Amino acid sequence: MAKKRVALIGATGIAGQQFIAALADHPWFKLTRLGASSRSAGKPYSQAIRDADTGQVRWWAEGEPPASVADIVVEEGAKMDARGVDLVFSAVESDVARELEPMFAEHVPVVSTASAFRYEDDIPLLLAGVSMEHTKLIKRHQKLRGWKGYILPQPNCTVIGLAITLKPLHDAYCVKRVSVVSMQGISGAGRSPGVAGLDVIDNIIPYIPGEEEKVAREARKLLGTATPSGFSAANIEVSATCTRAAVLEGHTEAVSVEFAKHASPQDVARTLLKAGAKPAKLGLPSMPENLIRVHDDPFRPQPRLDRDGGGGMVTSVGRIRPEPLYKHGVKYVLVSHNTKMGAAKGAILVAEYLREKGLL
Amino acid sequence: MAKKRVALIGATGIAGQQFIAALADHPWFKLTRLGASSRSAGKPYSQAIRDADTGQVRWWAEGEPPASVADIVVEEGAKMDARGVDLVFSAVESDVARELEPMFAEHVPVVSTASAFRYEDDIPLLLAGVSMEHTKLIKRHQKLRGWKGYILPQPNCTVIGLAITLKPLHDAYCVKRVSVVSMQGISGAGRSPGVAGLDVIDNIIPYIPGEEEKVAREARKLLGTATPSGFSAANIEVSATCTRAAVLEGHTEAVSVEFAKHASPQDVARTLLKAGAKPAKLGLPSMPENLIRVHDDPFRPQPRLDRDGGGGMVTSVGRIRPEPLYKHGVKYVLVSHNTKMGAAKGAILVAEYLREKGLL
Amino acid sequence: MAKKRVALIGATGIAGQQFIAALADHPWFKLTRLGASSRSAGKPYSQAIRDADTGQVRWWAEGEPPASVADIVVEEGAKMDARGVDLVFSAVESDVARELEPMFAEHVPVVSTASAFRYEDDIPLLLAGVSMEHTKLIKRHQKLRGWKGYILPQPNCTVIGLAITLKPLHDAYCVKRVSVVSMQGISGAGRSPGVAGLDVIDNIIPYIPGEEEKVAREARKLLGTATPSGFSAANIEVSATCTRAAVLEGHTEAVSVEFAKHASPQDVARTLLKAGAKPAKLGLPSMPENLIRVHDDPFRPQPRLDRDGGGGMVTSVGRIRPEPLYKHGVKYVLVSHNTKMGAAKGAILVAEYLREKGLL
Amino acid sequence: MAKKRVALIGATGIAGQQFIAALADHPWFKLTRLGASSRSAGKPYSQAIRDADTGQVRWWAEGEPPASVADIVVEEGAKMDARGVDLVFSAVESDVARELEPMFAEHVPVVSTASAFRYEDDIPLLLAGVSMEHTKLIKRHQKLRGWKGYILPQPNCTVIGLAITLKPLHDAYCVKRVSVVSMQGISGAGRSPGVAGLDVIDNIIPYIPGEEEKVAREARKLLGTATPSGFSAANIEVSATCTRAAVLEGHTEAVSVEFAKHASPQDVARTLLKAGAKPAKLGLPSMPENLIRVHDDPFRPQPRLDRDGGGGMVTSVGRIRPEPLYKHGVKYVLVSHNTKMGAAKGAILVAEYLREKGLL
Repeated sequence: MAKKRVALIGATGIAGQQFIAALADHPWFKLTRLGASSRSAGKPYSQAIRDADTGQVRWWAEGEPPASVADIVVEEGAKMDARGVDLVFSAVESDVARELEPMFAEHVPVVSTASAFRYEDDIPLLLAGVSMEHTKLIKRHQKLRGWKGYILPQPNCTVIGLAITLKPLHDAYCVKRVSVVSMQGISGAGRSPGVAGLDVIDNIIPYIPGEEEKVAREARKLLGTATPSGFSAANIEVSATCTRAAVLEGHTEAVSVEFAKHASPQDVARTLLKAGAKPAKLGLPSMPENLIRVHDDPFRPQPRLDRDGGGGMVTSVGRIRPEPLYKHGVKYVLVSHNTKMGAAKGAILVAEYLREKGLL
Repeated sequence: MAKKRVALIGATGIAGQQFIAALADHPWFKLTRLGASSRSAGKPYSQAIRDADTGQVRWWAEGEPPASVADIVVEEGAKMDARGVDLVFSAVESDVARELEPMFAEHVPVVSTASAFRYEDDIPLLLAGVSMEHTKLIKRHQKLRGWKGYILPQPNCTVIGLAITLKPLHDAYCVKRVSVVSMQGISGAGRSPGVAGLDVIDNIIPYIPGEEEKVAREARKLLGTATPSGFSAANIEVSATCTRAAVLEGHTEAVSVEFAKHASPQDVARTLLKAGAKPAKLGLPSMPENLIRVHDDPFRPQPRLDRDGGGGMVTSVGRIRPEPLYKHGVKYVLVSHNTKMGAAKGAILVAEYLREKGLL
Repeated sequence: MAKKRVALIGATGIAGQQFIAALADHPWFKLTRLGASSRSAGKPYSQAIRDADTGQVRWWAEGEPPASVADIVVEEGAKMDARGVDLVFSAVESDVARELEPMFAEHVPVVSTASAFRYEDDIPLLLAGVSMEHTKLIKRHQKLRGWKGYILPQPNCTVIGLAITLKPLHDAYCVKRVSVVSMQGISGAGRSPGVAGLDVIDNIIPYIPGEEEKVAREARKLLGTATPSGFSAANIEVSATCTRAAVLEGHTEAVSVEFAKHASPQDVARTLLKAGAKPAKLGLPSMPENLIRVHDDPFRPQPRLDRDGGGGMVTSVGRIRPEPLYKHGVKYVLVSHNTKMGAAKGAILVAEYLREKGLL
Repeated sequence: MAKKRVALIGATGIAGQQFIAALADHPWFKLTRLGASSRSAGKPYSQAIRDADTGQVRWWAEGEPPASVADIVVEEGAKMDARGVDLVFSAVESDVARELEPMFAEHVPVVSTASAFRYEDDIPLLLAGVSMEHTKLIKRHQKLRGWKGYILPQPNCTVIGLAITLKPLHDAYCVKRVSVVSMQGISGAGRSPGVAGLDVIDNIIPYIPGEEEKVAREARKLLGTATPSGFSAANIEVSATCTRAAVLEGHTEAVSVEFAKHASPQDVARTLLKAGAKPAKLGLPSMPENLIRVHDDPFRPQPRLDRDGGGGMVTSVGRIRPEPLYKHGVKYVLVSHNTKMGAAKGAILVAEYLREKGLL
């Protein structure tokens, strides 16, 4: 089967580089075109990622920039004609996404890490193990917009591990209230190169603008139901406090959940493991054996030790214990990788799913 | 007025050194004797804090070891006769405290940072702005034990900022449930020199053995009522998740509180500021102008910026906002200094209070 | 004696904020006007340092922004008329300095942390304990340029501790070759807010563009002689390797020196201490008791422990030992504060000297 | 060909765990026995690495403890009879090594990361690309000691990258003087779990006891010549300053070299690359394609980006430039992995070489 031809916009930023690293040897997708700002346009990729003043190669993904993209001449994203590709991955900032993504979606599917279209009522948020059946809304979305393609935004990196763990618990025990306190890695912090060392070394930053609202809103949408007219968000109270810690990658989240029904910590562990194993049956290249890992050792999960589990696609859960605040409820700690499952590789996993389902 | 003569046991550890730094120029107390393990006994203090293998001076408090203690010959704590002093500060580990502190308390008051006696029903936990009136139990405690002195343990460093903020809120709005997630600095982590760099750099450790139970239990005791027969603990559900972050000093805590009565974030801010100002009227040397600082800037408090407020004695509060999980409630973030207000200087503040009240 | 009225340009950046913090209660200088880019112009300072998107107060100096400047309305630096002040401190980037500083120097003295004019042959680099007598060139400089004022650039932060230690050694033992490897803190790294956490946590960056050339060139100028026609640079080979470490503030430097004459480590220690004590006799407010501290403990100096010595004005030296590479020579490690003695407070010290000598 | 049976002593420490991780799927060696202190003896390995107080699994190598060793019952190292194995790897502290290693060497070869026997005149230090031909001294060593086996200590982790780069330069241009300043990662720091976070976060520690002497002495031995009576150390002046930085793993070294002959930076790069490629021809499983990587990007090497090159076996070199202090000479920066090539995997590489040469 021929590989799908893929374009990437926002190719020079941190999220874009994570796409490039993850697509370097991808069995199903071939990265053929790269878009970025006009500043980078016309340069081979290997030049476009050099700092103009110092000549320094700016590369934040693992390893080295893959040779396969070094000579691709970067195009100006805003002028790119997507008709030559089967799919566009978008790793641009949200304001740029709002302009460019509809332009591409007229012709081809767009899978995006930007937040621009996450809250449109005709647009689903797809997340493995959580909301893949929301794909059934894509046709309606295309019809409403008059597009051949469509836009599928990746959820916020902080909500991803939360939703992956809440969904099976909600199905089994009916989640009523959720409180989450995040200690987030610095790699996902907006415009490159992110949080200043002066701000975060020997420190915690107790606020990430807009993040808490995104977590609450997206959690309810992800756990909601696709309906003929859009979504019926899950009726769950979500309260988030989002902080930044001196961690390179990986978001750690302390979660407290109230259930309608009784569930022991053992019940919760079993439910998570069982649910996490299901999606593996789809046979998608980026899908880990189990989306969820459960630790017995109370000192786990830790972001440095656990973020790379399953190639960064596993949500690691530990410290599952009763929540004394509620009649029925548990507390736990999770770690998920914010730039792998939480961004580029997560978006690629969605694209794999789309192809498997014949939607590309 | 003559200075009170003070002995310190556990003088070579991190907590002990914080005592020494804080007592160096104290207007009311004069540090005259130092106790430590038999390994240090017989050496002048300046030698006792050198690493036996490398000669390195091990000093974790601010600045340099004060000249005033350099030549004091360290005694073996277990053999110290406390009758020559007016007060003993204890900075030993809990197992050692259990043996030594009663020995001293037979003769003189002991103010301790160890947890050994925190949960005895005849022993109060004193905390400025929270439970100073629990001193009224001291006489009964002395009578029960047959001691001339008494033992006053300092509460756990993580509960201190929590209780200082909860107490006025409880008085005003009746606290029902409290959830706290801590991101703790590494300086208070048990035996010197504490958490390994390999464990905490680029990482979060999601578990601190025993800490969550201490926070819950001590919060209820601190906010409880002194009764003729001991304590009536406050009837509050407390749920804690305690983690360790790559922060040198200062505990950051994300707090969520349910009230019985309505209170807006503005009400809460006003209540905290008003309550925090009261203890300053006592005129104690280590008391800050206001025990509580309230930040408007949502990026505050941060441990590196706020831990040293008021000489490390201020609890900084920010991000006060409604808690959507409850009908009445708020969320906030606090920072308090774990080895100043949370240990040595907090214990010294208690001792100042005792002297002011004629209890030394 | 009336305080001198002072203007500051570059008032919103890291270096500018260090000036503001250091001038807050200065006995001789009163900060009356603040200049910054057009983006900040017209706003009170307390507003100008807020991030436009998030409202966050961006303040990198110690403590909080002083109340005394909160209401000063920031002017556009390029349009500032300096005639109402006695002195301008400049904390702008070098490209801006090249344009603005001569404009001010037509009328008043300018003391600057920018590198723009450091290498002009008529312009001295003044450094306490090293090159204060180069002030004798100021008159010639004014005449050549036709200015009432003058420009005095502060040397590069990395050369400062080096030159302060080399100068007395050069005078005593004649320095022939110097090798220096720096491990620099991140606070001085160019445009705010400096080095990204992603670059420096768990890492060393082995290159700082232009820094090594500056260190070599400025060391030779600082240790050189003022002559009727400008400078006769010191005839010393200087070889620098400049790296960036995960340290907030303070530059650590491993220095190796070849002398023409024999000098034991003890000789070197004595020479440094004696020389460092001299400048204190001038009675300048920002001058420490001794510009140089010498440690016996081989584990010192450490940037976190020693950078703030003497209010950040002391160069701490340790590990003085023979250099086996040379017939006569020593190795040592030094720590100096890059944004205090190395930038704002160092510039203020120069200004104090100028006033003392009647040159303001 | 049957796998060689291997025992490991010091199996529970950091270095021991690196051996276990590296041997988990080794094609030539099978780890069959594990030795540790009496405290661990009798427990299955999976239990022996749990903290006795907290139950925490203490594992510092990559990934998780391999299942293949989980059930091996740990023996007391001092009582182990090595006659059932073909080889002993030793990862014990030096004082223990001095007692145990000769006991094993009576019967079988011992390859060790301990320093105990490094300076014995009959014992070679083997290092790939540097001193493998020193194996010719093994027979004499066995004869002198009357052992069937022998002891081969791995050189100090800090000298390894230095010697790997110096050796080809010495062969080509005759090295006269070497100066090295190291910024070392914390993972190799003696007894588990190494450097305290309180010591190293936001800091540089300027001293590592004994390290500088080891670097100088071992560099001369490694670059020396095996003679009938032992070694003729290389006649090179080596001056080291060893510091500790807030880096988890990987030693960064700023090197300055004087040559007897002229060599341009380009000559040096070519010489290093050519020499580094040779050992790959041996076909050893742990040998990388090239022992040396040369970077053009002046911002490389960086420990976090380069330490894992070639599975942690590559020495990365960059910033090769003329050394102005010498008539002929260069400066460069290198990064090498201190617990892979610098400890366990380096020792395994030596063992592979021994087997290839029929010396096991």
